[in-house]
Amino acid sequence: MDQTRNRPQVVIAGAGFGGMEAARALARAPVDITIIDRHNHHTFQPLLYQVATAALSSPDIAWPIRSILRNQKNARVVMAAVTGIDVAKRIVHAGPVEVAYDFLVLATGATHSYFGHDEWAETAPGLKSIDDALEIRRRILLAFEHAEIASDSAKRQRLLTFVIVGGGPTGVEMAGAIAEIARHTLRSDFRRIDPGAARIVLVEAGPRILPTFPERLSAYAQRSLERMGVEVKTDSLVTDCRKDGVILKDGRIDAETIIWAAGVKASPAAQWIGTETDRAGRIKVGPHLDVPGHPEIFAVGDTAVLADPGAPPIPGIAPAAKQMGKYAGRLIAARVAGRAMPAPFTYRHFLDLATIGRKSAVVRRGRLQLTGYLGWWFWGIAHIYFLIGVRNRFVVALNWFWSYVTFRRGARVITER
Amino acid sequence: MDQTRNRPQVVIAGAGFGGMEAARALARAPVDITIIDRHNHHTFQPLLYQVATAALSSPDIAWPIRSILRNQKNARVVMAAVTGIDVAKRIVHAGPVEVAYDFLVLATGATHSYFGHDEWAETAPGLKSIDDALEIRRRILLAFEHAEIASDSAKRQRLLTFVIVGGGPTGVEMAGAIAEIARHTLRSDFRRIDPGAARIVLVEAGPRILPTFPERLSAYAQRSLERMGVEVKTDSLVTDCRKDGVILKDGRIDAETIIWAAGVKASPAAQWIGTETDRAGRIKVGPHLDVPGHPEIFAVGDTAVLADPGAPPIPGIAPAAKQMGKYAGRLIAARVAGRAMPAPFTYRHFLDLATIGRKSAVVRRGRLQLTGYLGWWFWGIAHIYFLIGVRNRFVVALNWFWSYVTFRRGARVITER
Repeated sequence: MDQTRNRPQVVIAGAGFGGMEAARALARAPVDITIIDRHNHHTFQPLLYQVATAALSSPDIAWPIRSILRNQKNARVVMAAVTGIDVAKRIVHAGPVEVAYDFLVLATGATHSYFGHDEWAETAPGLKSIDDALEIRRRILLAFEHAEIASDSAKRQRLLTFVIVGGGPTGVEMAGAIAEIARHTLRSDFRRIDPGAARIVLVEAGPRILPTFPERLSAYAQRSLERMGVEVKTDSLVTDCRKDGVILKDGRIDAETIIWAAGVKASPAAQWIGTETDRAGRIKVGPHLDVPGHPEIFAVGDTAVLADPGAPPIPGIAPAAKQMGKYAGRLIAARVAGRAMPAPFTYRHFLDLATIGRKSAVVRRGRLQLTGYLGWWFWGIAHIYFLIGVRNRFVVALNWFWSYVTFRRGARVITER
Repeated sequence: MDQTRNRPQVVIAGAGFGGMEAARALARAPVDITIIDRHNHHTFQPLLYQVATAALSSPDIAWPIRSILRNQKNARVVMAAVTGIDVAKRIVHAGPVEVAYDFLVLATGATHSYFGHDEWAETAPGLKSIDDALEIRRRILLAFEHAEIASDSAKRQRLLTFVIVGGGPTGVEMAGAIAEIARHTLRSDFRRIDPGAARIVLVEAGPRILPTFPERLSAYAQRSLERMGVEVKTDSLVTDCRKDGVILKDGRIDAETIIWAAGVKASPAAQWIGTETDRAGRIKVGPHLDVPGHPEIFAVGDTAVLADPGAPPIPGIAPAAKQMGKYAGRLIAARVAGRAMPAPFTYRHFLDLATIGRKSAVVRRGRLQLTGYLGWWFWGIAHIYFLIGVRNRFVVALNWFWSYVTFRRGARVITER
């Protein structure tokens, strides 16, 4: 991009929903964009749990960032991890690469939070990336394999116990999907164990699962999970995650497989630029998503929070990140063009969605609340619609149709770690 | 299977083409079958190079062994690596598992051979398993990513050089596929490098590539590759594989990515049972694929060779392994039923097939020789036909059709090692 060095340089850190929308919003602006991401792919995070549970394979929901941007000639992609930012010189350091910026969009998202117990990460992996999903898939499938050849029954029972910590949408989706694998997909596959006898426990610290949904939908989700054979433990605080099980405040569960869906914290973007954060590590941004004292730096998505304590909270979901990314991109385009500053960012909430299993999901849109079959169709169509690209939509729809008809899950390949 | 312990116990080590055919041939026999494999999946090896080159994703060509055998109730699957065999007590040891046998089929295949230079494995991975394919894919895609951000031109050139060692079908397929990625798939994806300028070198120690094919087809394949921009170096012996390149007898090639397709050696099955082998480590078997002195042990596929020096050689390809596996299964069924011993094994050679790239393949069947477009269609239809299962056939056909029309490769996700 050296030949156009006189054009404003925009650096976008992170190619998730926020970063990609920011790039797209700048497609026609006379700027040079550099997107930096440590992965080569954009991930459709809402369907990660389907990769983790072998319903989809990773290329179904992850696309090379370069492919998505191949026709956007003002954008280049750097696959590298951001290691620091020099706000005085306006340079982003990403391993061996240095990129100068006039505008910077921080969209590096969030990661799991173990509430100060990072040592739990090894025994209780979370689900934020394709690599996480493949690791969880490996553990789930290996647990059944090892149970089949286990010599004593205590070990077998521990191998067939799956604990999911955290009753938000991801936890609910994982619990439902593992129940389906055990009760349907693997039913005829083993000779010594009965996969249907697997114990699946969803542990939630608060009084109900799906706490951001109306109580009626939480209750519906819990009933649905229980019908599928999932034990739902609310008001249950995890005090330790060990190799052989989970310690709760009031007991323990022997389990080989623990999945962490309980908490997130922001990426370390705030530390790179030395700015104020909330307790979850999110950068406190002004009404234009700008970083205080740095009108050239914006933060969007899971790594940002509005500083105004009176602002309504923005949930950590894909549509919110997309809206923020788009806003930041448009604001930069306006600034570059010398146009008036847009009005402050306002978040528009469309809907709350969580799927529980085959034919069962909960949806809220304003006063509309859907459950069961109808909710499930709504969920499926919404996700297919938002997948990028005609082919991926079609392949995912085909895979789902196939799984729906046959109960099979195609992506049950255990790869090495 | 304890309740039927009085039925003859058949153990099949290895769930490749040979092992799976042996199991299938015993589907109606009054025996209990245990298939032992260290992977949970059967791999369609002829298309591994397409996973390595991001055209297909791993679940397209790998299926859980359990799924394939779910309806064969006399077969159980143990996912474990064979660690030894006690031929006196007739017990197979596989990690923590011990399995007693009355009949044993050794079908553990082959692995890469570095001709005594196992230290090359790290720098020049071979292509025998899904894990190998994913590792090679990771290296190929990362080479382009790192070239894009490389600061000096010598490093960039080294990153954009790909050496494939070995001019057999796998080497030819890999070279052709990498050329297609560079010249077509990635053409518009980068901003600083021109992927089309990548140097792809196919190195063969002998005088011509595809040495088992007629000379006319070898010459055709070489011309096709050269038209695609692949350098073909015949009579070129590799003397070292280093981190930064390949040393040849008469020069060196600086390259970040080296792929080994030069030699195979048998799995250590012969050592487990302490029997005689040929130089490639294959068990010398009698005319009934039986191990000398052990009429209850059979060896099939890449891990076996007919002891009779006058027997025509059996190539290391999928149809040969399948024929041998089927024969061993039928022979065991005959023995169990008290029927007459079948006639000695004879191999039927159907065809030689190698694909070079888009619209180009070579096929020989008896006196029939096909090249170019026609060969390519023949190759594609043959492979689709032999894929297991309706869905996989359809998904692979769909993926190929899509790649063919768009030049895109869907599975370009770089996962962690």
